[in-house]
Amino acid sequence: MAGSAVYEADAEAVVRRITPPLDRSRHKGQAGKIAVIGGCREYTGAPYFAAISALKVGADLSHVFCTKDAATVIKSYSPELIVHPILEESYSVRDDERASVSSKILTEVAKWMERFDCIVVGPGLGRDPFLLDCVSNIMKHARQANIPTVVDGDGLFLITNNLGLVEGNPLAILTPNVYEYKRLVQKVLNCDVNEETAAEQLTLLCQKIGGVTIMRKGKADVISDGKTVTQVSTFGSPRRCGGQGDILSGSVAVFTSWARHFIMSNAEPTEKSFVLMQCRVNPMTLGCIAGSLLLRKAASLAFEKSKRSTVTTGIIEFLGKSLEDICPAEH
Amino acid sequence: MAGSAVYEADAEAVVRRITPPLDRSRHKGQAGKIAVIGGCREYTGAPYFAAISALKVGADLSHVFCTKDAATVIKSYSPELIVHPILEESYSVRDDERASVSSKILTEVAKWMERFDCIVVGPGLGRDPFLLDCVSNIMKHARQANIPTVVDGDGLFLITNNLGLVEGNPLAILTPNVYEYKRLVQKVLNCDVNEETAAEQLTLLCQKIGGVTIMRKGKADVISDGKTVTQVSTFGSPRRCGGQGDILSGSVAVFTSWARHFIMSNAEPTEKSFVLMQCRVNPMTLGCIAGSLLLRKAASLAFEKSKRSTVTTGIIEFLGKSLEDICPAEH
Repeated sequence: MAGSAVYEADAEAVVRRITPPLDRSRHKGQAGKIAVIGGCREYTGAPYFAAISALKVGADLSHVFCTKDAATVIKSYSPELIVHPILEESYSVRDDERASVSSKILTEVAKWMERFDCIVVGPGLGRDPFLLDCVSNIMKHARQANIPTVVDGDGLFLITNNLGLVEGNPLAILTPNVYEYKRLVQKVLNCDVNEETAAEQLTLLCQKIGGVTIMRKGKADVISDGKTVTQVSTFGSPRRCGGQGDILSGSVAVFTSWARHFIMSNAEPTEKSFVLMQCRVNPMTLGCIAGSLLLRKAASLAFEKSKRSTVTTGIIEFLGKSLEDICPAEH
Repeated sequence: MAGSAVYEADAEAVVRRITPPLDRSRHKGQAGKIAVIGGCREYTGAPYFAAISALKVGADLSHVFCTKDAATVIKSYSPELIVHPILEESYSVRDDERASVSSKILTEVAKWMERFDCIVVGPGLGRDPFLLDCVSNIMKHARQANIPTVVDGDGLFLITNNLGLVEGNPLAILTPNVYEYKRLVQKVLNCDVNEETAAEQLTLLCQKIGGVTIMRKGKADVISDGKTVTQVSTFGSPRRCGGQGDILSGSVAVFTSWARHFIMSNAEPTEKSFVLMQCRVNPMTLGCIAGSLLLRKAASLAFEKSKRSTVTTGIIEFLGKSLEDICPAEH
C-alpha cells in the first residue's frame, strides 16, 4: 500500500449535504440530542466546551454527566446545558460502597442513554481509577444501545489501556492529538508513528481495532475507518490554546448524528456523486470531516478578530457564522 | 554610583523581538504554559486576573493552584482556565494532619511543575501560615526544577519574611508596589527607601538578594537584575483600580517564557543592536519590560473607553489589541 494517496475531502459539500433543513414541522430533539461524559474535580472547561459547541452547531439538547464538584461550575457557565451531577471519584466513595455506587451510576445514565443520538466520552474526564471504571460501564452500555460514541482526551487514555471498550465497534470515533495518537500506535501496532507511511499506518490501526473511525488531529486532520483515508487541511488558526479539541468532539457528535439520519432517510438518493461517496465512506467519517472543517473555519474567523488573544470561547462564538457561511439556514 | 542614569527601555522593540511568530506547525503548549499559585477563602479575583491575562497575552495553557473554596469561584469566572483545588488553609486542617496534608499538596503540584514555562506565586494567596508553609515548599520545588518564578502580592510578604526562598535564584522576579518595596528595602538593606539614590538602591537590593530581578512598580516601572537598571514610563492610566498588578504578573510570566525561548533559540542573532541589548540584560528583565509596556498600553485604551468606570476586566479586554498594535500577529 506504500504511497497510497490521501484525498482531500470536499468538506463543504459534506457539511451542506448532511446538515438537516430547518423544517417548521420538526419537534424539539429532532436536530440532535448529545451527551458529554466528563468533568471532574480538576476539569470543568473541557466538558462545557464540548457540550455548548454541540448546541451552537445546532443540536437541540446537550447534556453533561459529571461529578458533583464539576456540576455546579458547569451549570454556572451556561443555563443552556442539562448537567447531571452523578459521577464519583475515589476520594468521595468508601471502598465497601464502590460496587453499589458504580451500579447506581450506571442505572442513572442508562435511563437516559437511548434518548441520545451520540455521546462524547472524555473531555475533562480526569484519570481517577474509580471514575474511569464507571465510565467503562457506561461505554459498554452505549455500545449495547447502538449509540455512536466519540472518544477524546482522557477517554483515549481509558481505551488505550482497555481496547476491548471500542474493539469491533463501528459506531466508535477516536479523535487523538499528536501525543494520544502516538500512544495508541505504540499500544496497538507495537511500533512508533511513521510519517512516511502515515496513511497506511492509520488504516492498519483502524483495522486492528476492528472498524472504528479515527481522526488523527494535526496540521491536517486525517480520517480513516480502515477502508478509506481522507483529510481536511483547510487552514484554521495558528493559535493553539487549550480547548479546541473539545469544540471538535462536540461538533463531530452533532454532525455524525446528522450524517446517520441523512443516510438512513435517503434510501433513494438523487445525486450520483454523493451516492458514490456514501459507498466509500460511512457516516462516522462524514461527521469527522464536517466537524473538522467547521472548527477550522470558526478558529480562522476568531483569530481574524482577536489574534493572539483568541481563546476557545471566542472560537465557539463563530461556530454559527461558519456553518451559516457554508450552509445558510434558509436553504 | 551616585547619579547613575536609568535608561528608558525601548519596550516596543523588546515586545516585537521576543514575541514568537505564530507558526502553523506548532502544537498546543508551545506558546507557553503558565501556572498561578494563589486564591484562598478570601481572594479569588487576583489569581483569575493573572491567569486569564496569561492566556490573553498568548499563552496556550493557564493553570491556577488554589484552595477548594476559591476553586469553584475561579472556575466559574472562565472555562478557559485549569483550576486545581488543592491548597488548604489552617482552619480546614487538623494539627496532627498538617505534615501529611502538606506533603500531599507538594506531591500534587510537583507532578505538574515540569510542564510549566513559568509560575506566578502570590496573587490572592492570603497570609494563612499553613498555606504559606505549603507554598514555600512549592517555591523550593520550582527552583530545583529551574522554573522561572514571578513573585507578587502576598508572595512578596512570604519571601520578605523568608528571603532564602529567592536568594541566589536568577530565575526569580519580584514585582513589588510602593509598600511592598519599602518593606523589602527595610528588611534587606536595613534602611528606608531613598528616592535620590533610587537606582543604586534597587541595584544593591538585587545584589544582596543574589541575582534576582526586581521590577519596582510606580509612576515608572524600574527594573534591575543587579547589573543594569532600565525603566518603562509610557503613560498608562490614572485609574488605580485593584487588580492591575495581577495582569502585570501574568503578562510578565508569558513574556519571560518567550524571552527565554527567544534567547535560547537564537544562538546566531541577526540584529546587532539587539545582540548588544541581550548581553546587557537577561530574559527576566526583558519579560518585565514587555509586561510593563503591555499593561500600560491596555490600561490607556481601557481608560479612553471607560474613564472613571475602568475596571481590571476592562483592561484585560485590551491586552490583545495592545499586543497587536505593537506586534501584528502576521509578522
